[in-house]
Amino acid sequence: MNLKIIFRVLGFLLVVEGCAMLLALAIALLYGEQDLFAFLISSGISLGVGGIIVLGTAKAKKDIGKREGFIIVSMVWIVFSFFGCLPYIFSGSIPNFTDAFFETMSGFTTTGSSVLNDIESLPHGILFWRSMSQWLGGMGIIVLSLAILPVFGIGGMQLFMAEVPGPTPDKISPRIKQTAKTLWKIYMAFTLAETLLLWIGGMTFFDAINHSFTTMATGGFSTKQASVAYWSSPFIQYVIIVFMFLAGTNFTLSYFALKGKFSIVFKDEEFKYYGLFVIGFTALIFIGLLITTQLGVEQAFRDSLFQVITIITTTGYATADYLTWAPVLTMLIFMLFFFGGSAGSTGGGIKIMRIVVLLKNGYYELKRLVHPHAIIPVKFNKHSVDSKIVTNVLAFFIIYLVIFAISTIIFTLIEPNMESSMGAVATCLGNIGPGLGSVGPADNFHHIKPVGKWFLSFLMLLGRLELFTVLVLFSPSFWKE
Amino acid sequence: MNLKIIFRVLGFLLVVEGCAMLLALAIALLYGEQDLFAFLISSGISLGVGGIIVLGTAKAKKDIGKREGFIIVSMVWIVFSFFGCLPYIFSGSIPNFTDAFFETMSGFTTTGSSVLNDIESLPHGILFWRSMSQWLGGMGIIVLSLAILPVFGIGGMQLFMAEVPGPTPDKISPRIKQTAKTLWKIYMAFTLAETLLLWIGGMTFFDAINHSFTTMATGGFSTKQASVAYWSSPFIQYVIIVFMFLAGTNFTLSYFALKGKFSIVFKDEEFKYYGLFVIGFTALIFIGLLITTQLGVEQAFRDSLFQVITIITTTGYATADYLTWAPVLTMLIFMLFFFGGSAGSTGGGIKIMRIVVLLKNGYYELKRLVHPHAIIPVKFNKHSVDSKIVTNVLAFFIIYLVIFAISTIIFTLIEPNMESSMGAVATCLGNIGPGLGSVGPADNFHHIKPVGKWFLSFLMLLGRLELFTVLVLFSPSFWKE
Repeated sequence: MNLKIIFRVLGFLLVVEGCAMLLALAIALLYGEQDLFAFLISSGISLGVGGIIVLGTAKAKKDIGKREGFIIVSMVWIVFSFFGCLPYIFSGSIPNFTDAFFETMSGFTTTGSSVLNDIESLPHGILFWRSMSQWLGGMGIIVLSLAILPVFGIGGMQLFMAEVPGPTPDKISPRIKQTAKTLWKIYMAFTLAETLLLWIGGMTFFDAINHSFTTMATGGFSTKQASVAYWSSPFIQYVIIVFMFLAGTNFTLSYFALKGKFSIVFKDEEFKYYGLFVIGFTALIFIGLLITTQLGVEQAFRDSLFQVITIITTTGYATADYLTWAPVLTMLIFMLFFFGGSAGSTGGGIKIMRIVVLLKNGYYELKRLVHPHAIIPVKFNKHSVDSKIVTNVLAFFIIYLVIFAISTIIFTLIEPNMESSMGAVATCLGNIGPGLGSVGPADNFHHIKPVGKWFLSFLMLLGRLELFTVLVLFSPSFWKE
Repeated sequence: MNLKIIFRVLGFLLVVEGCAMLLALAIALLYGEQDLFAFLISSGISLGVGGIIVLGTAKAKKDIGKREGFIIVSMVWIVFSFFGCLPYIFSGSIPNFTDAFFETMSGFTTTGSSVLNDIESLPHGILFWRSMSQWLGGMGIIVLSLAILPVFGIGGMQLFMAEVPGPTPDKISPRIKQTAKTLWKIYMAFTLAETLLLWIGGMTFFDAINHSFTTMATGGFSTKQASVAYWSSPFIQYVIIVFMFLAGTNFTLSYFALKGKFSIVFKDEEFKYYGLFVIGFTALIFIGLLITTQLGVEQAFRDSLFQVITIITTTGYATADYLTWAPVLTMLIFMLFFFGGSAGSTGGGIKIMRIVVLLKNGYYELKRLVHPHAIIPVKFNKHSVDSKIVTNVLAFFIIYLVIFAISTIIFTLIEPNMESSMGAVATCLGNIGPGLGSVGPADNFHHIKPVGKWFLSFLMLLGRLELFTVLVLFSPSFWKE
C-alpha cells in the first residue's frame, strides 16, 4: 500500500478546496459581509494543511494502484466535508459541528438534504459556498466516472456506451486530462447558459448562478427556504427543468450533441429509456393531478414534469409538495427514488442503465424458461452484455436494497416512523434531497438527532460512490496482499 | 397445444375437490348443522362438472408438454377457487361471491388472509372446509415442487439439494407417484402428530385438527377470530412453533430426518441459514421487547419466536399484534415478509435459498471487484452454482420487487395509505396472511373494496406459483410454436 501517494493526492485536493474557498471569500468581500473572516480562516487552514502534506510527501512514488485508488476516492469526500464545514462553523451560520458536517456532506455528494431553517438569513458568501460544494461534487463525480475510472477499467460503465472511443486520445495520463478538460468545458458551458437564462427570467444574478451550480450538479440546494417554488415564473421553472434533464444525462452524450452528432444521442438506449421514464411518470402524475386537484392544465403539467425530473435526476428542488398529493401519486414519486440519473451524469441513485438491464434480464428470464436450451443474453445498445456485467448490476441492485432495508430498520430507532424512516434513508442513499413524512419537501433534516445525521451522512457517501467503492474497503480480501 | 389433456387433468382434479367436499359434508353431518346442504350441492356440482369433463376427454392424447404443464398448474388454483367457494356461498357463511372467492383463493394458496369478522359463528363443516383448503393447497405445492417439477427439470430447485437422488426411483411416472406418496406420508404423519399434541395441550379435537391442517400448510387460517392468541397455553403455542418450523423446512430434509439421516439435514446450507435467520431475528425482537415492554422474559421470548416463525414460514397466525410494538420491531417483522420458507416446503415468499444466493452473490461481487480476473462462482452446499441459476434467482428477486412496487402503487388507488398498501400487497404476494396498517394481525381484509380483493387474489396466485409459472403465460414467446 503506497500510503504516501494517498496522502499526497488528498493534500493536493485539499489545496484545491482551499482555493475554492477563496472564491467564496471574494463573494463575501463583494457583499462586504462578516463571513469574510470565516472564509479567511477556513481557507488558511485548508491551504496550510494541504500544503504541508503535499510538501511532506514530495518523495512519494507516483504509482497509484487500484487499492490506493479506492481509498483515495472514498477519503476525498470525507476530507472535503471535514474541511468544507469550517466556514459554516466559523461564520456561526451552522455553529453545530454535526449539522455543519451533514450540510457539507449533503453538498459534496450533491444530495441537497438540508438542516437550515432560515436560508434567506445567511450571508452571500456562505450561500455561495454551499452551492459551490455541490457544483464541485458534481464535477468530481463526472470526472471520476467518465475520465478516471474507465481508464483503470473500473466500473464497467464505459462498456455500455453506444460509440466506443469517446473524446479520449491514447496514453493514460494525458487521456484523463484531455477527457476531464472536455467535460469541464461542457459543465462550464451548461452552467453559464443556465445562469444567463435564469437571470433573463428574472432571478438576481446571484440567485441565478447559485441555482445553475446546484442544477448542473443535480444537487438541489436553493438560496430560498421555499426552494424553486419561490419563483412562480413558468419560464424559470422550465429552464431549470431543461437543465436538470441535461445534468441527468450522460455527459459524453452532451459532448456528442454539442458536436452536432445527434444520431449518437438518439441511438443511445439509456437515453431513450431515460426519456421514456420521464414521459411515462409525468403523464401518470399529470393525469392524476388533473383528476384529484383544481390545478389548471399548464400548472398540473409543469408541477408533474418538474417533480418527476427533480426526483429522477436526484436533484431535489421543489415547486410542489408531493406529500400533499393523492397517495398513489406520492407513491409514484417514491418509486422514482429508486431510479436515478444516467450513468456518467451528475445524478445519483441506482441509475437508468442498471434499471434497464435489470428489467431486460427479468423479461429475458421468461424467454429462457420457455426455451431452456437457448442462450439469450441481455442486449444493450445492440450488443450482448457480458454476463459478468449483468451479475454485477444485479448484485449492485440487491446490495442497494439490502442497505436500504437494514438502514431503514436502524433508522426507525432514531425516527420512529416507518414512512419518514424509509424516506430519509432512500433520499440520502440516492443523493436526492427531500424524503417522505417528517423529511418531505416542505420540511428539512434539522430535527433529526445527531446520531441520525451521521448515519445519513454515511449513506450519502455510500450512495454517491455507488456502494462498491466504499464497501470494498470493508472486505477482508481488499486488505490481503 | 394439447387442449384436451389440459381439460382432462383439470376435470380429474375437480373430481378430487368434489371428494374433498364430501369430507366436509361428513363433518356437517356429524355436527348436524345446516351447512350440510351447501356441501351436498357444491360437491354435486364439482363432481358432476369434473366427471363430465373427464368422460368427455377420454380420447385425449396422454402427452403433457412443458406448455400444457404451465397452463394446468396456473389453472388448477383458479378452478379450485371457483368451485371451492361454492360451500361458503350456498351456506350463506360468505354470501358475497367476491369475498367467498378471496377467502378460497387465500385458502388454496395457503395465504391465510381472511374477510371473516366472526369466525366462531360459522358451522363446523365450513370451518373444516376452510382449513382443508389450505391443507390441500400445501400438499399440492409440495408435490408440485418436489415430485413433479424436478422430473420435468423445471425450477432448478433440485440442483441445490445437498444429496442428489432423494426418495425417487427411475422411470418418470412411477417416480412422480413414488415421491408424491412418500411426501404425502410425511405430511400426514406431521399433521397427525400435531393434532394429537394440540389435543393433549387442551384444544378440542376439532380445533386441533383444523390448526394442524393450517400449520402444516403454512396457511394460518384459525377457527378463532383471535387466531392462536385465543389459547394462552405456552405448550400449545410452542407445539405450533415447532410444526410451523417443520412446515417451512424442505420436506425432503424431513424425509431424511425421519430416516435418521440427520447429518444430511444439518449439512444442508438452506436449513442452516433458515435456522440462523430465525435465531437472529428472534434475538433482536426479544431484546427489543424486553427493553420496550413490560413482558416477562418467557412471554417476550415466546412472542418474538412465534411471530418470527409465523412470518418467515408465511403461516400468518398471531399471538401478538406486531403493529403495537416499537416501530423498529415492526420493521424487522416487515423485513421478514420478504424472506419466506425453504424451497420444497409449503412456505411461500421469496424462499430462504434465493435470499442466501442473493446475499452470497452480492458479497462475492466485492471479491470480484478486488480480483477482477479471478472467477468466483457462488457456492451452495459446497458446489458451484451454475451462473444461469444465479441469474434466474436474481431475476426472480427483481421481478418480485417490481411486482411488489407497482402493485403497491396501484393498490394505493384502492386503499389510500402507503403502509396498509405495502402490507396488503407484500402479505398476499408472499402468501403470509396479515399485513400492516389497516390489514394488520388484529384486523382483516373485510373492508377492502371488491376490485382490491380480486387484485390481491391474483397476487396470491402469482406468489404461490413463484411468479414465472404465471408470468410466462403472458409472454408472447410462450404462445409461439
